[in-house]
Amino acid sequence: MKMTNPSFVLRAVKDVALEDRPTPQLKDPNDVLVHVGQTGICGSDVHYWQRGRIGSYILTAPMVLGHESAGTVVQVGRDVTTLRPGDKVAMEPGVPCRRCDQCRRGTYHLCGQMVFAATPPYDGTLAKYYINAADFCYKIPDSMDLEQAAMVEPLSVAVAVAKTADLRAHQTVVVLGCGPIGVLCQAVAKSWGAKKVIGVDVVDSRLQVAKSYGVDGVFKPRQAEDATVDPMQHAEDVAEELKAAFDLGEGADAVLECSGAESCVQMGIYAAKHGGTFVQAGMGKEVVSFPITTVCIRGLTIKGSIRYLAGCYPAAIDLISSGKVDVKRLVTNRFKFEDAEKAFELVKEGRSDVFKVLIEGVQ
Amino acid sequence: MKMTNPSFVLRAVKDVALEDRPTPQLKDPNDVLVHVGQTGICGSDVHYWQRGRIGSYILTAPMVLGHESAGTVVQVGRDVTTLRPGDKVAMEPGVPCRRCDQCRRGTYHLCGQMVFAATPPYDGTLAKYYINAADFCYKIPDSMDLEQAAMVEPLSVAVAVAKTADLRAHQTVVVLGCGPIGVLCQAVAKSWGAKKVIGVDVVDSRLQVAKSYGVDGVFKPRQAEDATVDPMQHAEDVAEELKAAFDLGEGADAVLECSGAESCVQMGIYAAKHGGTFVQAGMGKEVVSFPITTVCIRGLTIKGSIRYLAGCYPAAIDLISSGKVDVKRLVTNRFKFEDAEKAFELVKEGRSDVFKVLIEGVQ
Amino acid sequence: MKMTNPSFVLRAVKDVALEDRPTPQLKDPNDVLVHVGQTGICGSDVHYWQRGRIGSYILTAPMVLGHESAGTVVQVGRDVTTLRPGDKVAMEPGVPCRRCDQCRRGTYHLCGQMVFAATPPYDGTLAKYYINAADFCYKIPDSMDLEQAAMVEPLSVAVAVAKTADLRAHQTVVVLGCGPIGVLCQAVAKSWGAKKVIGVDVVDSRLQVAKSYGVDGVFKPRQAEDATVDPMQHAEDVAEELKAAFDLGEGADAVLECSGAESCVQMGIYAAKHGGTFVQAGMGKEVVSFPITTVCIRGLTIKGSIRYLAGCYPAAIDLISSGKVDVKRLVTNRFKFEDAEKAFELVKEGRSDVFKVLIEGVQ
Amino acid sequence: MKMTNPSFVLRAVKDVALEDRPTPQLKDPNDVLVHVGQTGICGSDVHYWQRGRIGSYILTAPMVLGHESAGTVVQVGRDVTTLRPGDKVAMEPGVPCRRCDQCRRGTYHLCGQMVFAATPPYDGTLAKYYINAADFCYKIPDSMDLEQAAMVEPLSVAVAVAKTADLRAHQTVVVLGCGPIGVLCQAVAKSWGAKKVIGVDVVDSRLQVAKSYGVDGVFKPRQAEDATVDPMQHAEDVAEELKAAFDLGEGADAVLECSGAESCVQMGIYAAKHGGTFVQAGMGKEVVSFPITTVCIRGLTIKGSIRYLAGCYPAAIDLISSGKVDVKRLVTNRFKFEDAEKAFELVKEGRSDVFKVLIEGVQ
Repeated sequence: MKMTNPSFVLRAVKDVALEDRPTPQLKDPNDVLVHVGQTGICGSDVHYWQRGRIGSYILTAPMVLGHESAGTVVQVGRDVTTLRPGDKVAMEPGVPCRRCDQCRRGTYHLCGQMVFAATPPYDGTLAKYYINAADFCYKIPDSMDLEQAAMVEPLSVAVAVAKTADLRAHQTVVVLGCGPIGVLCQAVAKSWGAKKVIGVDVVDSRLQVAKSYGVDGVFKPRQAEDATVDPMQHAEDVAEELKAAFDLGEGADAVLECSGAESCVQMGIYAAKHGGTFVQAGMGKEVVSFPITTVCIRGLTIKGSIRYLAGCYPAAIDLISSGKVDVKRLVTNRFKFEDAEKAFELVKEGRSDVFKVLIEGVQ
Repeated sequence: MKMTNPSFVLRAVKDVALEDRPTPQLKDPNDVLVHVGQTGICGSDVHYWQRGRIGSYILTAPMVLGHESAGTVVQVGRDVTTLRPGDKVAMEPGVPCRRCDQCRRGTYHLCGQMVFAATPPYDGTLAKYYINAADFCYKIPDSMDLEQAAMVEPLSVAVAVAKTADLRAHQTVVVLGCGPIGVLCQAVAKSWGAKKVIGVDVVDSRLQVAKSYGVDGVFKPRQAEDATVDPMQHAEDVAEELKAAFDLGEGADAVLECSGAESCVQMGIYAAKHGGTFVQAGMGKEVVSFPITTVCIRGLTIKGSIRYLAGCYPAAIDLISSGKVDVKRLVTNRFKFEDAEKAFELVKEGRSDVFKVLIEGVQ
Repeated sequence: MKMTNPSFVLRAVKDVALEDRPTPQLKDPNDVLVHVGQTGICGSDVHYWQRGRIGSYILTAPMVLGHESAGTVVQVGRDVTTLRPGDKVAMEPGVPCRRCDQCRRGTYHLCGQMVFAATPPYDGTLAKYYINAADFCYKIPDSMDLEQAAMVEPLSVAVAVAKTADLRAHQTVVVLGCGPIGVLCQAVAKSWGAKKVIGVDVVDSRLQVAKSYGVDGVFKPRQAEDATVDPMQHAEDVAEELKAAFDLGEGADAVLECSGAESCVQMGIYAAKHGGTFVQAGMGKEVVSFPITTVCIRGLTIKGSIRYLAGCYPAAIDLISSGKVDVKRLVTNRFKFEDAEKAFELVKEGRSDVFKVLIEGVQ
Repeated sequence: MKMTNPSFVLRAVKDVALEDRPTPQLKDPNDVLVHVGQTGICGSDVHYWQRGRIGSYILTAPMVLGHESAGTVVQVGRDVTTLRPGDKVAMEPGVPCRRCDQCRRGTYHLCGQMVFAATPPYDGTLAKYYINAADFCYKIPDSMDLEQAAMVEPLSVAVAVAKTADLRAHQTVVVLGCGPIGVLCQAVAKSWGAKKVIGVDVVDSRLQVAKSYGVDGVFKPRQAEDATVDPMQHAEDVAEELKAAFDLGEGADAVLECSGAESCVQMGIYAAKHGGTFVQAGMGKEVVSFPITTVCIRGLTIKGSIRYLAGCYPAAIDLISSGKVDVKRLVTNRFKFEDAEKAFELVKEGRSDVFKVLIEGVQ
């Protein structure tokens, strides 16, 4: 490709194109310039492409897509001491303000001034070059390649879910949804010493993937017989069936909701033990029917998980480099940079055999 | 009254009567026999009276009502070393099994084998005599009387809400609902050093009571103009009005829901800051429309609070005896034991000027 | 053996004997009678034998020794629902009062009324039969044998150390001392997902055992060259050597002290990172020279670990039955019940090739 | 004073002088220039003056002293949105790197790259003008003056001690040492709802000050009768006397050591209840004799407190502006800027009637 800095740009809703853009220049002495090597496609990328908005983030000008990237450091700012040109890095794509209360208290993922790749108005990483803060570029060991490094992003999301749930060894964990994040949550739970991890999905092939990642059991919830069944009662009934099937007693210590489906949210609440924890990580319907009195009576804790907490990227790198989580098996499809739109088309289809799609960077 | 152990019995739905029952005999060497001096009426008492059930607890045989009681120790079991006849005590009305995982891990309020006064099939405290475990009878200082001691129960509920929210000094706290529990939550938050406590209610007289308990502000949410307004959008709008009115920035550190109203649950979620905590304590509609994506995106923690945690009774006694919380002002009505049914009738009416109703024990 | 209930009794300091005692009779309806199958010997057993006291616990009457036992349930009290005759169980040897503040708040291991086996004045488990509370007898799966079940006790001690340190996945952990507890702490840390675990000891053979349990590195601290070296400076120097050798940066996330040696306590403090955690589990010199200003400046947390917390026994059983920790390899010597004194003699010698000694129960 | 930027400079050990220095120029767009109005003198200032070093911080070039300052914003960097010229601010004197693990996890006080006023090689605040990061300048309400604002620093130290101890309402708290930090710790504990706070000191006049701040009791430990008494036994005996005198049962929930005296450290360990917390905040002898086995057996938590945690400055401002803590009464002596050396001389004397000494800024 003869372009200076070829970039995959979302010009408007459903309108993407490969554009040449100037190579970005380092300004902040703590930044580095990275040659992007591999980029995964996330549902949110497709969402912006198709709808132009997520919640209050609205596309108003052309924006480079992509935020799950790894690459090679090309140039470092003058105050950077932790990286050198040639270092291979996984890039955390959101840089917070570092000065607000959230940042200073260690919850930088909730910073209101976050600059997040491919979230309007900020450009993403699907370009030849990307500038990132040095401390948000994590050097990977030689034993890892850039495909694994790009997969650090979704694994960090799963680590964040597990941290949000405060998962501990010897717990029982139910994970709702066996897509990439769900399966990775299961893998994280197992690697942290969970006693029993159960994967739940309605698609058989996804349950098979979950099995291959070492879960202790998989569960396919039955559909309600007909429309006369109260959905909430059905959710409770299915949760009881799940508990019985896997000897979970009064319920799971932790329930991780990675599907975003309303029925899964409901079932998940009933699947938690008294005093247990339920984490919402999946994004689906914005408003759901919710058994609030059960939350009250059972003394449950419900938490939302968003993006990554401090320490998630290093943890994910540790999981991959130590061989505890094999992320490569989740990569089902690979595309050249010039075929980026095809890659997006494939993800849009939502086929159950497509787990993770990677786009190789421009040489 | 010439009865041996006059008892206020719920014979069946809407059928109560004063019965004479045998004085209970100490069997467990760790129990004590208490002469009941004062008993508050709780919404759940009225609920059993009117409907015969709460959730899965169903009245199937006559049951003595009442569980907010204080009294004087009459007799102690042979292994009791902490109490003596004559001691005035506040009684925690639920005794757990002490042997299950919940009990052993310190969350005894979630014990599945809990024996709770006036929860079927267990008799309550509205009798002349009641037997309780000695360690669930808390000796009160001489400076407190039995009315205050009976009020330890609702104050303990409020302390449990505050503990569940993990309230800390210097936080901003929004309390939804200014009934007895809501007002006591506000008082607890203030006594724990909250920076700003805002009481919310739709009834002016209740807001006045909140004010008199030292809240930093009261807020009466406006009604939606008409039925075309999306309730969730209205909830968010009103929450923003609340934040603006009291300079809460992006939201409150903690939101305590003590009303059970669906609109309050919704507004409360939007009133919490990113990373903030929302505790559900009020019981109302069992299933509500719930903005789950907001929980996710804002990284919120939602917790249910039920009954009292370990340490709540001593904390409540400390608050009353130190003069930090004046519970007597909440007692709006007092009845003799023989007028217990009248007391229940009054509570059933739900008048906004009736906060707490006490029934004096039989001499 | 023709005795009714042969028991290994410490009659007085340095005076043990095999005595016949009556078979204990169930009184508490929540107790069970266990036929003891395997018992490990602990340093504290030897300590009582040789000195007659540990701290304020003083031998004043003959006492059966032993507290690391597993066996088979023979008889159950009438309220026991969780166990049946024939069940194989690991026995947690300390039963708390269940009624004090510590018990009710979930820290029953700190109960002042604890009845602990082989701690004066309470008899231990080195007998044919032993009565224990049913909820302190943990049924083991069929895949485990009684030798493994007896090893649940020391593994639970290690789990308690790890819980006290609040160990998390991806941490760096330094364990001082590679005796049975130290090695088991290392194994627990690894199974919980530690990033790097370093075992420290001055005895090479113990370091070899640590290696075989999967630590990431072992370290043998050098001796000070001569008596003129300030011990505290030496401790700091050696800690810096340890950090440099294993790339621990400013120090380990957690340091677990399992040796009780003063020099290890000191080195351990310096080995922790700023804000790190140090847990004292080893018992040695009661008073040590301690760098308190370093604790202050570095913002360290120092915690003491004693016995087992709620949940440690189930966790240890999970670790053994899942194959994550191989406790059998630590059992270096086995004795018949009638040779119990020989077993004690062997442990007393303190040979570095003797890790864990088990005494088989009487048939 | 006709100087441009008069500054109180420590030229070398025991050699201070008033020098004129150029007014500092804003470079970082997030900084502000502050006209210093009031500055308190801290023991560490005097320490550098007299000895030229604290731990590994060594004076190697002239350095402006002072770090407990408040003032008025004169000029703001172009990215500053939270402050305007004319705003009165309390200044947190340590600005961290914002990029290391400690900063990103919310423990910025442990940042190894901290730029701390009057800690070599960084100049302090005892000058007419000082540049600080805007987010480390906290606007005070109109109800507060600059003397109170300067006192935010020591009060923040006390808040940090209380946060490190994780103090909760209804706890019993023993504070060792009734100097400024000790007394402020007592005041913080009370304002957070402590049930009982006991101040300990050997100087009667300091105990009187503690009393005036609302402690529930004061305690003057007796001296050992003669040199034959084992210091550790004496510490334990005195701790028992303290517990008995104030009905603390098995000990205090939290012990805050603010004296730095070895005997207080020792007594404090014995004064904590089983499972209790001891925080070391006082700086004295670097190495002390320490009852490590007691820490172990009693399951204690020992923590070091250093400087201020995130949120301490706002908390301290809340305490002062709400009237909960009266810091002005601690200010016993006031000096003009040109008499700064006299102020230092007074603090050096260590008189028990001198609590806090303030130096007024140059107009």
